[in-house]
Amino acid sequence: MKVNGIPFRTIWPTADGAVEIIDQTRLPHEFVTLRLESMRDAEFAIREMQVRGAPLIGVTAAYGVALSMRHHASDAALQATCDMLAKARPTAVNLHWAIERMRAVLSPLPVNMRADAAWQEAGRIAEQDVQINQAIGRHGLELIRAIHQQKNETVNILTHCNAGWLATVDWGTALAPIYTAFEAGIPLHVWVDETRPRNQGASLTAWELAQHGVPHTVIVDNAGGHLMQHAQVDMVIVGCDRVTSTGDVCNKIGTYLKALAAFDNGVPFYVAMPTPTLDWTLQDGVQEIPIEERDAEEVTHVSGLCDDGQIRRVQLTPKGSPAVNYGFDVTPARLVTGLITERGLVAANADAIRAQLI
Amino acid sequence: MKVNGIPFRTIWPTADGAVEIIDQTRLPHEFVTLRLESMRDAEFAIREMQVRGAPLIGVTAAYGVALSMRHHASDAALQATCDMLAKARPTAVNLHWAIERMRAVLSPLPVNMRADAAWQEAGRIAEQDVQINQAIGRHGLELIRAIHQQKNETVNILTHCNAGWLATVDWGTALAPIYTAFEAGIPLHVWVDETRPRNQGASLTAWELAQHGVPHTVIVDNAGGHLMQHAQVDMVIVGCDRVTSTGDVCNKIGTYLKALAAFDNGVPFYVAMPTPTLDWTLQDGVQEIPIEERDAEEVTHVSGLCDDGQIRRVQLTPKGSPAVNYGFDVTPARLVTGLITERGLVAANADAIRAQLI
Repeated sequence: MKVNGIPFRTIWPTADGAVEIIDQTRLPHEFVTLRLESMRDAEFAIREMQVRGAPLIGVTAAYGVALSMRHHASDAALQATCDMLAKARPTAVNLHWAIERMRAVLSPLPVNMRADAAWQEAGRIAEQDVQINQAIGRHGLELIRAIHQQKNETVNILTHCNAGWLATVDWGTALAPIYTAFEAGIPLHVWVDETRPRNQGASLTAWELAQHGVPHTVIVDNAGGHLMQHAQVDMVIVGCDRVTSTGDVCNKIGTYLKALAAFDNGVPFYVAMPTPTLDWTLQDGVQEIPIEERDAEEVTHVSGLCDDGQIRRVQLTPKGSPAVNYGFDVTPARLVTGLITERGLVAANADAIRAQLI
Repeated sequence: MKVNGIPFRTIWPTADGAVEIIDQTRLPHEFVTLRLESMRDAEFAIREMQVRGAPLIGVTAAYGVALSMRHHASDAALQATCDMLAKARPTAVNLHWAIERMRAVLSPLPVNMRADAAWQEAGRIAEQDVQINQAIGRHGLELIRAIHQQKNETVNILTHCNAGWLATVDWGTALAPIYTAFEAGIPLHVWVDETRPRNQGASLTAWELAQHGVPHTVIVDNAGGHLMQHAQVDMVIVGCDRVTSTGDVCNKIGTYLKALAAFDNGVPFYVAMPTPTLDWTLQDGVQEIPIEERDAEEVTHVSGLCDDGQIRRVQLTPKGSPAVNYGFDVTPARLVTGLITERGLVAANADAIRAQLI
């Protein structure tokens, strides 16, 4: 999508065999691109969330494997590369999916063919992500269009965290239907959950919607229930980091609370899910999905732009108070109206998922 | 309660006829007291949230009337004072309750007796607040004790916003049971919701619990649902700004989301309610209670302590993104396990409220 009027993706290969990314830790106040030259650069970018969002993490890991194969393409090097990248973030299933796909393609090949093959395969994964998101956009568009036809007014959509184009290679998952509907001329407005502690909504989602010209309003994570009680939300669309075979959805911490409020107020709650995010091995999301616990300083401190133009980090809590920082929660399938996949809308239950997606 | 080992209240009359308060906008990084010398000082303190919390707002308004009566005690001055103070914050019913109580006491009196009477009446309101909170503490203690007797381990209590002693004259409402149980030797731990946008949990609740030595952990507002899903919360206790005659609870924005999560996970959800907070005129909280909309900059910007020791305000959102800031939401009575009042535990329904509190 566009930044300052220029089309960008979140990750792209350079002419001289490196990879560039947008440093998402600098947004929304600074637009900076970074050059990745090694597997370690890619691992660092994933771990430090310079890239984030399940699909983009997967593509970055694939390019990380490709960058590594340039230098060392032996079986041992491939194994070590995959092991290291897999540990960069514990929750995102796409990370493992992308790494295993690279391994499956590269393992059977002679060592001297692996570097070129890895480069091409990473590119294919990136292209497929774009195609998946465009398809999610088309399917989601129909849901938004139906609400607009019934309401004949601006459609208000609430989203949590950033599942926009910045979380993918392009278009986004949760925001793909929104961009697609916006470009189809449907009047819409997005409620952007701030998404503490890392504020991906207030920083990334707000930034990309603003860059693209989509009407939106930032709200604190506490506000969505009140808005739903007062009929200010027509639908919720969120992304996901991992979905069980039964339709339980692991996504950014706080998603579950919005799903409860949507259910309580009869607001449809949709999850945009690229099918690689589905984890067929899991049945009970709350019990089985490990939840990443991140640095408490993400809770106690926050960064932003000072009046003098400097980006500074400030402490919010008193010195003597500990904090804890869970990155994700699990929304039980019973609260999910539907999964918007690249293969169409799928009900969030084991039968529908098996019937439509196996 | 204690600050640096010294007993404090949140508001107190000085020997020379002024009123002092703790400037709560400076917490948790600086402990500063302020002197109020006029009704305008009191109105400013309420409006700018140097004092906040429904009970403390009421007491500050009462002292505001008293400060005004020193200078002008005519019927017209009394009317103008009450009108001005009543507008300082739109949602808190205690504000109106305290002002009407002052008016009822002062109106029948000769003009020259009003100043002294106002001073004494404001003091009585403050003392009654302390007694109410101590009684809430005793009733809430029994609920915490019962959980501890059943569990025989540390009792985990989640609270939202600040309904501690800083929100009242002393002890607090939601935190009174916690302080009382802590002093009774019951092992407990408090999950402190950060409470965006103004972070009263991360700043005020964490600060006062730390000062008093109560074990606690700060979490983002998004985290409570996840904790409840994993049996990390034994009970929720929150305060309230206004409660309808049917038991609907208006409290800090986001309370409703925690009530939904508690209900979904079978966690008891209690509201500490001084009976002056009850608004007998209301039946349907969601429809009838006006919700204060505050400055959007409270969402887009946040203040905290920089590494260099300066308190600075930073912007979280991109420049082109609007925000909206609703101060409160309404939790329907069906989600409330009980109201902890100074007169005992009351079920959150019209019959019980009428039977026990009329």
